[in-house]
Amino acid sequence: MGDFYWKTNLSYTSEDGIYIRGYDLAELIGNVPFPSVLYLLYTGELPEPNIAKLIDAVMVASIDHGSGAPSVLAARTAISGGAPLGAAGAAGLLSLGKFHGAAVQDSMEAIQSVVALSDEGDTLTIAAGRVVAEWRQAGRRISGFGHRQHKRKDPRLARLFDLAQEAGVSGRYLAAAQALEDALKRAVGKDLPINIDGAMAAILSEVGFPSDLSNALFMVARITGILAHAQEEQAQMPPMRRIDPVDHGYSGPEHRKLDTKK
Amino acid sequence: MGDFYWKTNLSYTSEDGIYIRGYDLAELIGNVPFPSVLYLLYTGELPEPNIAKLIDAVMVASIDHGSGAPSVLAARTAISGGAPLGAAGAAGLLSLGKFHGAAVQDSMEAIQSVVALSDEGDTLTIAAGRVVAEWRQAGRRISGFGHRQHKRKDPRLARLFDLAQEAGVSGRYLAAAQALEDALKRAVGKDLPINIDGAMAAILSEVGFPSDLSNALFMVARITGILAHAQEEQAQMPPMRRIDPVDHGYSGPEHRKLDTKK
Amino acid sequence: MGDFYWKTNLSYTSEDGIYIRGYDLAELIGNVPFPSVLYLLYTGELPEPNIAKLIDAVMVASIDHGSGAPSVLAARTAISGGAPLGAAGAAGLLSLGKFHGAAVQDSMEAIQSVVALSDEGDTLTIAAGRVVAEWRQAGRRISGFGHRQHKRKDPRLARLFDLAQEAGVSGRYLAAAQALEDALKRAVGKDLPINIDGAMAAILSEVGFPSDLSNALFMVARITGILAHAQEEQAQMPPMRRIDPVDHGYSGPEHRKLDTKK
Amino acid sequence: MGDFYWKTNLSYTSEDGIYIRGYDLAELIGNVPFPSVLYLLYTGELPEPNIAKLIDAVMVASIDHGSGAPSVLAARTAISGGAPLGAAGAAGLLSLGKFHGAAVQDSMEAIQSVVALSDEGDTLTIAAGRVVAEWRQAGRRISGFGHRQHKRKDPRLARLFDLAQEAGVSGRYLAAAQALEDALKRAVGKDLPINIDGAMAAILSEVGFPSDLSNALFMVARITGILAHAQEEQAQMPPMRRIDPVDHGYSGPEHRKLDTKK
Repeated sequence: MGDFYWKTNLSYTSEDGIYIRGYDLAELIGNVPFPSVLYLLYTGELPEPNIAKLIDAVMVASIDHGSGAPSVLAARTAISGGAPLGAAGAAGLLSLGKFHGAAVQDSMEAIQSVVALSDEGDTLTIAAGRVVAEWRQAGRRISGFGHRQHKRKDPRLARLFDLAQEAGVSGRYLAAAQALEDALKRAVGKDLPINIDGAMAAILSEVGFPSDLSNALFMVARITGILAHAQEEQAQMPPMRRIDPVDHGYSGPEHRKLDTKK
Repeated sequence: MGDFYWKTNLSYTSEDGIYIRGYDLAELIGNVPFPSVLYLLYTGELPEPNIAKLIDAVMVASIDHGSGAPSVLAARTAISGGAPLGAAGAAGLLSLGKFHGAAVQDSMEAIQSVVALSDEGDTLTIAAGRVVAEWRQAGRRISGFGHRQHKRKDPRLARLFDLAQEAGVSGRYLAAAQALEDALKRAVGKDLPINIDGAMAAILSEVGFPSDLSNALFMVARITGILAHAQEEQAQMPPMRRIDPVDHGYSGPEHRKLDTKK
Repeated sequence: MGDFYWKTNLSYTSEDGIYIRGYDLAELIGNVPFPSVLYLLYTGELPEPNIAKLIDAVMVASIDHGSGAPSVLAARTAISGGAPLGAAGAAGLLSLGKFHGAAVQDSMEAIQSVVALSDEGDTLTIAAGRVVAEWRQAGRRISGFGHRQHKRKDPRLARLFDLAQEAGVSGRYLAAAQALEDALKRAVGKDLPINIDGAMAAILSEVGFPSDLSNALFMVARITGILAHAQEEQAQMPPMRRIDPVDHGYSGPEHRKLDTKK
Repeated sequence: MGDFYWKTNLSYTSEDGIYIRGYDLAELIGNVPFPSVLYLLYTGELPEPNIAKLIDAVMVASIDHGSGAPSVLAARTAISGGAPLGAAGAAGLLSLGKFHGAAVQDSMEAIQSVVALSDEGDTLTIAAGRVVAEWRQAGRRISGFGHRQHKRKDPRLARLFDLAQEAGVSGRYLAAAQALEDALKRAVGKDLPINIDGAMAAILSEVGFPSDLSNALFMVARITGILAHAQEEQAQMPPMRRIDPVDHGYSGPEHRKLDTKK
C-alpha cells in the first residue's frame, strides 16, 4: 500500500467476481431488477418491493422527452458531425445542466426543507411560505414547479402520484410539494404547478433516495433516450444536416394501447 | 413546414403527453419495467416476458466493474478537478471506447457472421473457422473473447447462460459463440474463452437486439456505476487528489448472501 | 519505480519549473509566440521563422466559422441547459467529428500518398489519378475537396497559398493537392475545388507537421471560437431557448478594414 | 425571419468570406497573430502591440503542465480506452474544473474587488483585508494564491511580471494581487504566495480582458498540451494500460537553452 492508497464503499472485483455493496453481482443477475440494483449501488441497500416499483416508475417517466429536447439536439449534432455513439451521448449528457434535467436535486432540497421546518412545529403552509421567501430572497429559483411545455397537467404526474399512494409511502413529502405549489402561487401571483421534476423530487424524498444522486438517476434514465436519438441520426440522416430544433415531426407507429394483461 | 423539416420514429410530445413508439409514456409507467421500455425504444416493440428478463439480466451484469475501470478513473478525475456530476459522467462515457466497453457490437457482428454462414450450409466449426480467418486477415480483432482480469471463468457468464436457457432462446448464437472460441483456440494456439462482452453479444443476438444499439445498452447500464463512483469522489475525497488506478481497496459491506425469497 | 512506470517525450515539471521538449517554459514565455510553442510541443522542435508564420496563419484561418457551425450549436445548446463553460466547450469539441473539422488528417494522407507515388516516378497527374481510384474503390471519400458553403472560392485559400509561397516552401504538396483536384474532376465529372481543409492539409504537409496532430491544431484553433459563442449564449440569451441553426443574424460591428500599418 | 430568429455579435459567414467582429478573416490571416485574433474575438477589438505580447505570453505560460495534470490523465485514460482524439480532448477539458485550471476567473473577481474598493478611497491594504474577510465569511476560497507543487517561486511568475512591466501596464491590479497575498498571510497565518492563476488574473485584469472569458483563454492554451499527451498515448502506449498518475518520468530531449537571437 503506497502513499496514495484509497478506498471505496461501492464495489470491488476479485478473481471470483464483482461485488456490489457486498452482494455478488452474479447472484443479482436475474434475481434483482436493474432499477433495484441501481438503488443498491446508490443507497447501499436493496429496496423493499414497493419502493423498487416506485424507482422503476420514476426511471420510466424520465426515459425520453422527444426530439426537441436540448440534450437530444446536442447528441444529434455531435453524431451528425461524425462523433461515435458514446461521444454523442456525452454531448447530450453535458446538455443536462441545471436548466434541463438536473433540477431534481434542487427540488428535493426545497421539499425537504419544508418537511424539516414542519418537523420543528410549523404547519406545512407556514413552512412552505418560509422556504419560498428564503429562497426568493437568496435569488434561488425553486425547481420543480411551472410547466414549459405541457399546458394541461403532465399526465405522467397523476400516474406517479397514484403509484406512490399504492406503494404506501408516508405522503409527507408529497404534501410538502403541494404546499410549495400553493406558497409559490401566493408569492408569485400565478400558477406554477408541480412539474415532473418536482414530482420526482417528492417521490424520491418519500423513498429516502439520496438527493445528491437524484440527478444521476435521471441521467441514467434519460441517456437511454439520448442514445436512441443519436443512433437514429447516424443510421438514417445525411451527415452535417441542419437539425431544426422546432420544425420536425414523427413517423413512427400510431398511438396504441398498452395490453396490460399480457 | 420549412426546408429543414425532419422526422423521427422514436417518440413525440404533445400537450397530452409523451409517446414512445406509439405508447403513452404515462401508461408505461408502473406497468412496464425500465429495461423493457429501453427495449421498446431501441427495437420498436415491447419484449415478450422471457426476453424482458434477459434484457434486465444483461443490464444488471454491466452495471459496474469496480473502481479500477478506466471509465471510473476518468470520471473521478474530472469531478476531482471540480466538474459537475454530469460532466464527470460524460468523461466516463468518453472512456468507454472500442477497447473498453464498446466491444459488444463488434462481437455481435462476428457471431452473426458465423450464424449466417451456417445458414448457407457450413457446419458451425467451418463457419467459425472462416470468420476467424477472414477477420484475422483483415487485421480485425474478434471482440468478446479472452479475459483481461478474471483468471477463472467470470461468474457472470454461467448465470447469463443459465438465464438464456431458461428463457428458451434458440441457442444458435450461443453455439456460434462457442464455435468461435474453439476456432480462435485453433488459430491462435491459446485459450481465449468467451468473456462478458461475448456473452452479452450472443444473448443480445438471440433476442434480436439491434447490434448498433448494443453498445448503447451497455452505456446506459455502466453510466449507473460511473455516476455512483463520481458522486462518492465528490462527497468523500479531497479535490485534486492523486487517484491511484491500482492501489485502492474496498471499505463497504462485507460479502452477504442475497435473500432470494424476499 | 513500480510496475506501472511510464515515460513521456513531451514535458515534465520539477521544483525549478516546467520543461517543454527540453526548453524551460519560463524562457519560452515572451520569446516564442504561442503557435510556435504548439509546434514545438507537437513536433519536438521550434519552427524556423517562415514556418512559424505559416502555422500561425493556419490557426487564424481556423479560429471560427460563424454561429451556424454544428460545433457552435452543440456548445450553445449545452450552456443553454446550464452547463459550465468547459462542458460547453467539450460538447463543441465532440461535434468536430470526421464530417466537421476533423478532415485535415485524411486530406494530408491523400496528398502525401500522391507525393510518395510521384517520388517513385509517377507524374503528379498519374499519381493523383491512382490515389483517387484507389480511395474510391475502398469507399473512402477524399477529404479537403468540395465546398459546402462558399460558392465562390473561399477567400482564406488565396491568402494561405500566398503566404506559403512567401514562406518559400517546396510547393510539392500544394501541387499534389492541385493534381488531386484535377483527378477528382476527371473521376467524378464535376468541380470539387480544394477547400479550407485541403489547403491546410497541403500547407501542413509542406512544413512537415505530423498528420496525426493536424486535427489537434484545428481543434485548438476552433475551440477558441466555440468558447466565445458559448460565453455569449450564457451572458446574453435566456436559458433553454430554441437555438435555430439557420434563422439567425449578426449584430456586431460592420465590416471594417484592417489597419496593417499599425 | 421566424419566431426563433436570434443574433450574435461575434462573427458571420457569407459567400464572400468569414467576418470576425467586422474584420475579414482572410485579411487577418498572416497579418494578426493567433493570440491577438483570440483577443479580438473575446473583447471586440484588436489589442495594442504591447497588450498583444502579454496575451501571447499568458497563453504560452498555460500551454502544458506535464503528464501528471488531472486533465492529461483523464484524456490519456479516454484515448487508452479507444476514444478518438477529440473525445479525449473533451475528457481533458471536462477535468479543468474549479479546482484545476478554471481558477483565473475567480481570482480576477477578487483582485478587481480590491481595486474597486481602492477606487472608493480605501488603501490597498485595507481594501485587500476587507475582500479577504468578506470572502472567508462567505465560505469562498480566494483562488490564485498558494502553491500545490512548486515549492520555490514558480519561475513563470517572474517572467510574466517582467513582461507586464515592459508592456507599461498601470500596475494597479498587480499591486492589488500583492496586497491580497499580504492580507491572506495576515488572515490565515501562513504564506500563500501568488500562483500562476493569480498572476494570470492580475495581468488579464491589467489588459482589460473580460473575466468571464479568462477561463476560456486558459482552456484554449491548455487543450494544446492535453491533445499532445492524448496523441502520444494513442501512438506509443498499449491500449487499456494502467496509467499511473505519479510513477512516471520523462524521456524527451535534455534541458536546452533557447537561442533568443534566432
